[in-house]
Amino acid sequence: MRRIKLTVAYDGTNYCGWQIQPNGITIEAALNRAVSTLTGEEIRVLGASRTDSGVHALGNVAVFDTRSRIPAERFSYALNQRLPRDIAVVNSEEVPLDWHPRYQNSRKTYEYRIINTKVPMPTERLYHCFVGFDLDVEKMREGAAYLLGEHDFASFCCIRTNAKTTVRTITELNIEQKDKEIVIRVSGNGFLYNMVRIIAGVLIRVGRGFYEPEKVLSLLEGKERTREAVTAPPQGLFLVGIEYEND
Amino acid sequence: MRRIKLTVAYDGTNYCGWQIQPNGITIEAALNRAVSTLTGEEIRVLGASRTDSGVHALGNVAVFDTRSRIPAERFSYALNQRLPRDIAVVNSEEVPLDWHPRYQNSRKTYEYRIINTKVPMPTERLYHCFVGFDLDVEKMREGAAYLLGEHDFASFCCIRTNAKTTVRTITELNIEQKDKEIVIRVSGNGFLYNMVRIIAGVLIRVGRGFYEPEKVLSLLEGKERTREAVTAPPQGLFLVGIEYEND
Repeated sequence: MRRIKLTVAYDGTNYCGWQIQPNGITIEAALNRAVSTLTGEEIRVLGASRTDSGVHALGNVAVFDTRSRIPAERFSYALNQRLPRDIAVVNSEEVPLDWHPRYQNSRKTYEYRIINTKVPMPTERLYHCFVGFDLDVEKMREGAAYLLGEHDFASFCCIRTNAKTTVRTITELNIEQKDKEIVIRVSGNGFLYNMVRIIAGVLIRVGRGFYEPEKVLSLLEGKERTREAVTAPPQGLFLVGIEYEND
Repeated sequence: MRRIKLTVAYDGTNYCGWQIQPNGITIEAALNRAVSTLTGEEIRVLGASRTDSGVHALGNVAVFDTRSRIPAERFSYALNQRLPRDIAVVNSEEVPLDWHPRYQNSRKTYEYRIINTKVPMPTERLYHCFVGFDLDVEKMREGAAYLLGEHDFASFCCIRTNAKTTVRTITELNIEQKDKEIVIRVSGNGFLYNMVRIIAGVLIRVGRGFYEPEKVLSLLEGKERTREAVTAPPQGLFLVGIEYEND
């Protein structure tokens, strides 16, 4: 028996997120089907991050165990022949049988992409959040600075979370602007449910002038989710990648 | 009677191109429907560039004549309420009644976008041509240099053209690389049918090392379309904009 680690990219537009659901097609279900057809075994992959409906990934991670003799690095190519064009395995490799994609220290990086034009541009609509009002990126950066480091992010988290603790560490939080595109890039040791989309939603309000940058601090200190901590829409969110400490 | 000029952006993925066809939905048909519903008149728009199936636009141009009293600059907003999300009017303004989007001097700019990764990335697939082999951008630039200026582009043109002359002038032709994205940006006073996609197809072959850069010159001098002048796929092509001389 071998454990194979997959790095998976996908366009989340037409999926009900990662996790298998009774209604609607998911990334996990599509991967299970491709891996099972390829190996002839009944296989269920185990994913690192259960991204929401409509959220995209450049490098989510999943593992599965197999008795197949296919060389580990060939799985990528072989699975891509069997997957729909909106899911791709960008890398495949063997890992130890006890290697787990969730229960170990890692650094996740997300991007939240905003398009700041007067009219929503059709060719940007699937991979950006559209904001029609001018955004003040400097103010967004001021607000973002309060989130860097270790904090209790209870107020930046969906109330339906079942996390044991809401303390997380953000190691990097940059906002870059290129023409009409604004990208919030955030890395950390873990993120609560909806945390990146709430950070984006709040920073967009700061950029529009609805909130002062200091509002980010007062929300953080409130340690309770309120309606002021708005969630930005899913199509702007990309799981860029996951780095594991012992890799 | 007034003539209204529209600047139109669209995602060509789900359309059979610009021009009305008996089978399949087109951008022109969708615009006609929206303008006619809005004004209550039976209106047919007149487009500047009849882009092919699957080709995108950031700024194609169309005009129509109307007796409606809607202020010219309000058409943009009003039409966007009636158009599907993959078509958007980014600007609307009044022009003289004899202003024609095709029969006057203009400068068109296109981009051909290539994504040069090992595996086709799902979130790039709709708006890029995927090339899995490493491209030598310097060689592509060398090849592109032969195309700059006034030439007979007969060998870079679909044989089904009904243009009176195949002489055109390319005023700008740059190739930019940013990470894994390569963008061929080309401007000129007019382009023959499939000309930009053939330029892209040939330059991709140069980048892959199939053709030497000098091959571009020999193709050009042949003045006859051959199978060596390959057409790159439509989803990488963007009509960026059209500038009119007298505007």
